Amino acid sequence: MADLFFDEIHNFTVVVAPERSKRPKNEIEAKNEVHITCPFCPGNESMTPPESYNFKGTSQNWIIRTFPNKYPAFVHNHPISSLAGIQEVLVETEKHNQKFEEFSIDRLKNIFDAYKQRIEYFKHKQETKYIVVFKNYGEKAGATLEHLHSQIVALNAVPFKIEEQNKKLEEYFSNHNKCYYCHLKETSNLIYENESYFSVMPNDARFSYECLIIPKKHNPYYETESNETFYDLAETILILTKTINSLSDSTSFNLILKNGVYLNSFNELSFHWHFQYIPRTTYLAGFEWATGIFIRQVDHEKVAEQIKKKRKYESL
Amino acid sequence: MADLFFDEIHNFTVVVAPERSKRPKNEIEAKNEVHITCPFCPGNESMTPPESYNFKGTSQNWIIRTFPNKYPAFVHNHPISSLAGIQEVLVETEKHNQKFEEFSIDRLKNIFDAYKQRIEYFKHKQETKYIVVFKNYGEKAGATLEHLHSQIVALNAVPFKIEEQNKKLEEYFSNHNKCYYCHLKETSNLIYENESYFSVMPNDARFSYECLIIPKKHNPYYETESNETFYDLAETILILTKTINSLSDSTSFNLILKNGVYLNSFNELSFHWHFQYIPRTTYLAGFEWATGIFIRQVDHEKVAEQIKKKRKYESL
Repeated sequence: MADLFFDEIHNFTVVVAPERSKRPKNEIEAKNEVHITCPFCPGNESMTPPESYNFKGTSQNWIIRTFPNKYPAFVHNHPISSLAGIQEVLVETEKHNQKFEEFSIDRLKNIFDAYKQRIEYFKHKQETKYIVVFKNYGEKAGATLEHLHSQIVALNAVPFKIEEQNKKLEEYFSNHNKCYYCHLKETSNLIYENESYFSVMPNDARFSYECLIIPKKHNPYYETESNETFYDLAETILILTKTINSLSDSTSFNLILKNGVYLNSFNELSFHWHFQYIPRTTYLAGFEWATGIFIRQVDHEKVAEQIKKKRKYESL
Repeated sequence: MADLFFDEIHNFTVVVAPERSKRPKNEIEAKNEVHITCPFCPGNESMTPPESYNFKGTSQNWIIRTFPNKYPAFVHNHPISSLAGIQEVLVETEKHNQKFEEFSIDRLKNIFDAYKQRIEYFKHKQETKYIVVFKNYGEKAGATLEHLHSQIVALNAVPFKIEEQNKKLEEYFSNHNKCYYCHLKETSNLIYENESYFSVMPNDARFSYECLIIPKKHNPYYETESNETFYDLAETILILTKTINSLSDSTSFNLILKNGVYLNSFNELSFHWHFQYIPRTTYLAGFEWATGIFIRQVDHEKVAEQIKKKRKYESL
């Protein structure tokens, strides 16, 4: 049973979910493609709740599958909380030892297709107001199981932080007559672009090598993006991952899909869906918590130059 | 040279400080009281900038000392940034292998005295508007050197987050005719108290076992607290550390001194200095960054009961 609190002074919403401390953790590093105790490996499907979706690719067997999270932080129809949600796990590969940076463009494209399918499914539920898709890769990024997976959470309310940000984005739009994210291509450090996407490493990013991946055509909702463009999206993210890994000493990252909200009041002109890619190279420390001031160790203007130079001589 | 950016959408202040990536890291675990390559050990004083303060205790040699941070994130009189600061390191002990939870009450009291001395010193500089004192203990808490130390940062401006929180605290005061922190003793989960201090583990805390240590007498500024009460402060923090360590599987924590700001507009009735103690048991993951919703794995109401029961039968 999850309890919900709102810290009225600091604007934090807190979900108390003791059930989650029972989540399994990998105790040994797997040496094989299939790990006998891993709930995400083929053959162990009975260890997870019933499947909600799968993708078979060219084989007879699933290569991507989704199912409800066994250790949810949110309870649907919670008797006292006004915040409820549905949580799914999306297993991204049948191979236990797959590394993210070694995915093919095709496979990553299939994963992005699967995100779209699940968002389509959840958005048609009447109570859905916001959907978050995110991925924690590596221990420093908060991953508790190493078999590659993403998570999908459909919420019945818009988180306070998102509401506030959307208000700011509306202000930005009315001041500049341009969407903040469209504008970033000119105002921020461009590090990569292809036909459908561009990526910037903003000067005001909180974390070293933090970047955004943005569709070139303004679009508030991920699920209305053409699947064809997901090849370009996969290429962009794989190139960024490889390049950032070669510059930094940690491969952990969080990948977060920021999507539009499902409210009548939503301003489609001022919001633009995108991915936020946060490499986790350092731990947050006392100063950041104390002041809300983030100390970043890398100059993004210089890194952007480095990356652009590197990209001239290397292909994926 | 540090650069400064403000993310107008997300309200983050970002300091870019590439110099900091050159900070030394401990490569081996020290086996001795003195570590030959540790800049914080006795005998290695020449490895640090010149000392600004020391405390000798009963011996001829220093047991606590402070000096400017060799790898500052802030530059005093920065040509383009409006945010500048002075950073000091406070080495808490002459012993390389000292563990925080094994400090004596006397030693911890001396450390709190030293905090007061350095705050007194910095607050009299005309440009000082806010002083942060914090401690990162353990790798998960962001500590890069294991020899016990705290950090002191005197800023020439009040961080945006603190400004916002102070506004909310003023609102709270005018709505309840009571200081928010004074009120916590009745409204939150009390876990410990002695003559001068009490500690609560709020329901709306973002992190498992996060607690606040608050002086019983309303007081906006740490440095005006009587040094006599620091025995009680040290006792409270040692008891909390030992108790929380026995319940959780990580000993990493951040300890943050939240103190009043130095502005004429400051409302002394609505702000109350206190310590925030944040055990770092899990890593922040994608969901928290995406939504500002913190998922906590521990029910603080139950933990408070456990701690109170434990305290009945155990002494420090």
